[in-house]
Parts: sequence; C-alpha cells; structure tokens
Amino acid sequence: MLKSIHFSGVLLMAASPLLADPLPSWNAGETKSAIISFVETVTDPASGDYVTPADRIAVFDNDGTLWAEQPAYFQLFFAIDQVAKMGEADPAALSSDALKAAAARDIEALLATGKDGLLEVLAAAHSGMSVADFKANVAEWLDTATHPTTGRPYDSMLYQPMLELLRYLRDEGFATYIVSGGGIDFIRVFSEDAYNIPTSQVVGSSLVSEYVAEGTPMLMKQPDLFFNDDKAGKPVAINHHIGKRPIFAGGNSDGDFQMLEWTTSGEGPSFGLYVHHTDGEREWAYDREGHIGVLNRGLDEGDARGWYFADMARDWAVIFPAEE
Amino acid sequence: MLKSIHFSGVLLMAASPLLADPLPSWNAGETKSAIISFVETVTDPASGDYVTPADRIAVFDNDGTLWAEQPAYFQLFFAIDQVAKMGEADPAALSSDALKAAAARDIEALLATGKDGLLEVLAAAHSGMSVADFKANVAEWLDTATHPTTGRPYDSMLYQPMLELLRYLRDEGFATYIVSGGGIDFIRVFSEDAYNIPTSQVVGSSLVSEYVAEGTPMLMKQPDLFFNDDKAGKPVAINHHIGKRPIFAGGNSDGDFQMLEWTTSGEGPSFGLYVHHTDGEREWAYDREGHIGVLNRGLDEGDARGWYFADMARDWAVIFPAEE
Repeated sequence: MLKSIHFSGVLLMAASPLLADPLPSWNAGETKSAIISFVETVTDPASGDYVTPADRIAVFDNDGTLWAEQPAYFQLFFAIDQVAKMGEADPAALSSDALKAAAARDIEALLATGKDGLLEVLAAAHSGMSVADFKANVAEWLDTATHPTTGRPYDSMLYQPMLELLRYLRDEGFATYIVSGGGIDFIRVFSEDAYNIPTSQVVGSSLVSEYVAEGTPMLMKQPDLFFNDDKAGKPVAINHHIGKRPIFAGGNSDGDFQMLEWTTSGEGPSFGLYVHHTDGEREWAYDREGHIGVLNRGLDEGDARGWYFADMARDWAVIFPAEE
Repeated sequence: MLKSIHFSGVLLMAASPLLADPLPSWNAGETKSAIISFVETVTDPASGDYVTPADRIAVFDNDGTLWAEQPAYFQLFFAIDQVAKMGEADPAALSSDALKAAAARDIEALLATGKDGLLEVLAAAHSGMSVADFKANVAEWLDTATHPTTGRPYDSMLYQPMLELLRYLRDEGFATYIVSGGGIDFIRVFSEDAYNIPTSQVVGSSLVSEYVAEGTPMLMKQPDLFFNDDKAGKPVAINHHIGKRPIFAGGNSDGDFQMLEWTTSGEGPSFGLYVHHTDGEREWAYDREGHIGVLNRGLDEGDARGWYFADMARDWAVIFPAEE
C-alpha cells in the first residue's frame, strides 16, 4: 500500500511538468525559465518572496506586446477606414488634404500632412459621437476589416505566447491589466473576447468625454486629449486606475520604459519583460529605428536592470494563433 | 422517504429567509424589499431581467453614503490636522490666514477665507509629497485622529446597513465600486479594510501626479486638480475606470444625481438608491440646505424616476457598527 502510493506520487511528479507546461508556445530557454521561476516563487507561501494575491498585479502594453503593430498601429487603420466611410456617405466631409488622403488610403500622402494631419484623421474617427456609437463602429470594423499584408482580421493577430502568459498569470492569482498608449474605448471593445481582460482592467489614452443629459443621457467623445498613456504617463495611469505598484510588467518599446522601471523599482520581487521584434520571417523585425515601437533605451539598459527579453525568433515557437 | 425529503424541503424554505436575511440592519419596508427583489431578479437565470455577473456593476458615493460627512467632510479634518502638524514642525510654514486658521483648528476663521483658503489648506495637505508618503500620512491620521463630536475613529463611522448592502451585492456576484467626490488616494488607504473594496475599485477626485525617475522612482502629487469626480464628472469617471454602465447606484446628494441618472437610463434593469439623512438623534438630519450633502433635485425627482430612498430614521435599525 505504501509502496503503491509512493509509486503513483513519483509518477505524478514526473508527469506534471510535461502535462502542465503553462507556456507551450514558448521555447525552452532563459526567459521562459525566468518567468516560471518568478511566478512559482511569488505564489509559494513558503518563499520569502511570497506575494499575497491582492498584490499580484501584472500590466502589459498592447500594441507590439499583445498584438501586432505593423505596418502601422491598427487603430490608425481603423481611423482611415472610418474616414473613408465618412467620405462615401458625404464627399464634402473630406474637407482637408489629410482627410482626403485617408479616404483614398494613401498612407504616403497622409504622412506628408504631418502630425496635425494624423491628429485630424484620428479626431474625425474618434470624436463627435457617443462612446456607445464609437464602440459599435469599432466592433463593426473588427468584424469586417482585414490586415493589409496578412489578410487576417486584426483581432486574430494576437501573440499566442502572450495569450498563454496572460492565462498563466491569472491561473496563478494575478490580475492582468492592459496599459496602452492606444485608446481606452477602442481596446475595451475586444479586450474581453481577445484577452479575457474585462473593461475595468484596460487602461489607455483617452479623449475628453462629456456627459450630456438632454434626451437619452449619453457620454459624448470630444476631440481634446484627456490623457496620453505613454512613457511617464504609464506609471501615473497605473496609480490612477489600479492604486498599487505592479509586480510584473511587459512592453516592447521605449514608451514602456517607465512602466517597467516603476514596476521593478518596488521593494519586493518584480519582473520586467520586453518583447523584442526579431523575426522578420514570421512577423516583423524592428527595434532601434522607425516610426512604430522604437526600442533603444530598453535595449541599452534592460540587461543591467535585470529585465528579460522575449526574443521572438528565439523564444516563440508560435507567433499568432492558428486561424479558425 | 419521499415525505421526509419533502418535509425537510419545506423546513429549508421556511427557514432560509429568516436565517439568511442579507440586510439585518435594515428595517422591513418598501426600500429593503425593493433592494432584495431587484437583486433576486437580476441574479435569477430564469428571469427576463437576468444580468450576467460581468455586468453586475454597483457604484456608491462615499461621503454621506458609506460613511458620515458631518460636521464637515472627514478629508477636510485630515487636511486641517496635517496643516496643524506642519505648523508644529515649522511655524513659518503657516504663511497665510487660511493655514493659520486651520492650524488653530478655527473652522469659522478658515471658512471666512473662502474657497481659495480651503483649497490652500487642501493643497498643503495633499501635494508636494509622493503618493506613498501621502498614503502613510492618511494611515497614521486614521489610526490616531478622532471625530470632533462622537470621539470615534473616523473609519468607524461607516454605515452598518451599507456595509451589509455592499457584502450582499458582492455575495450575489456584483463588483462594488466607490465613486466619490473625495480624493482617490485618500479613500484607497482605508477602502480595503473598511469596505472590502480593493484600490482598483475606488474612483475619486484627484490631483495631477507626476512620475519622477531621478533617484528612487516615485509619483509626486502636484497641487493642480486632475479630475473633479462630482456631478456630471461621475458618469465620465465611471466610463473611464469601469468602461460599463452600472446597474446599481447609491448616493446621498445632488452631486450623485447624474450617477443615478446614468445608471438608471440604461436599457436593462437598474436600481437607484438615495440615502436620506433624516435621523438627527442617531446621526445628522439634513437635506435641502447647508454646505455639505445638499439634496434638492434628488428629492424633487427621485420618486418620478423610480429611485428608492433609504430614510435613515425609518429604514435603518442600526447606523454605525458597534464599537470594538
């Protein structure tokens, strides 16, 4: 009897790491090992680095960290498509070079109108309507639009290894938050379906919204920026929305540097993770140069700060989920 | 056998309402019945008004709704006590009539300095320090200060019936949020202990905070207002923090009107609750006049809007929890 119990115990111990790999799309290596070791340590009540579940806060950038961001932020494609739709309904609505370039899907011409032109296109697609109507527009776009180079729906271009990491952390008692430079109302449309992250755990940039009570009460989106959730704005927004310092942060660009810095400068255990876009075959290869996801300071200082890199070519066996 | 099962079933049915009264400090009456009926309906999968747990969002004002607010907002007493402490450490810090009046705890003289004087006192106690240091100040104050008329610790002057309502809602799958005109960093110091509400479910007014990375990274509180979470600001903040329309809202003043209006103008079932301060014996009696918790529009329009009133004298068998 004793021997039989002992025997099955050995079997269980030998089998469980294979059966229960929480990150099956991650290749074996330093980064995967470090993630698992960190999670096992902070969830082990016998560890000196044990962290109570209420303090297991994990924060992730979205563009380039949880889903792709090339050849341009997906939210910009949304804005361009919305402006094109506005132009079809009423050509007179295309009252500037920037709006005309967007409606013609001429990215070169749009970029030539500069930052003001881009902001005009974003404002046209993101303001002058209620939050509810805006979210309906985003939902319809996600259901119909496809990515210009992969032809896939935008919300299928999620990183499978990061989906596994989010689930693993939640299984181990973490609350997982998105802290994005992208729009908070935009991301909330798909965060529950795509990431299993509720709207209350999405933090992002936002425009001013105004409560209008005449008729049916609604929240109207105004063109003015309320909060820019990027760089030093990320720790500020984390404090504003969560009220605690996270112990795990994941990003992919210098816009995430302060979030990783803030997360890893607390007194207890912490983990900083940079997704490094190294795979030009299966995704896109970029870091120090370009207009999207620029990563310089993170590459220069990450190692010294004890942060880990998910090198996509090296660490990820799979990039995107299999298409349904 | 069948009879015995039937018999115990009857016993259970008869006993459960008595054994399981979720609101024992509420007197029987229309408001208590309406709350329980609403919760039973939205949690009953067989009901046409069933609400999925992810959408069971309940929001509550804090001052005058979850804890007392007389003879002045407790956060003002905190500010006055902080200024007095500053004056003890360095009398030269009391550089204005308002700061001098606060340090002398001369409320009349402080009010005589007007809104600017009050804001100066609040700014002195709430800015020029890190969020962490501010929270330590609040925690120390809560541990030591006592209310000027009851002599009780401020965080014991919670409303027992509302604590029961919060717990009842959570037991039935609701997420309970505070949405307060008071300071978000202030309330977060005691929300977990007092209300079992995590910091991430506290929404409030806030000052600008700035991320400072030199030396040990910290968030510094600046004197400028970032967001005023009152009146029409409450629906805006609810959208910003939660991203969904609540189905239950509780408040006590016209500052909560738009929150109740927004909550009860959705398409599905909803509940609006006003705490009405009618009990001058056990608490304070006030509504249409004064400088704190003024309630006019709510009294004028609440019935027609289908909102309920917790009349403290009529509906609450107990006001504050028994002292430990």
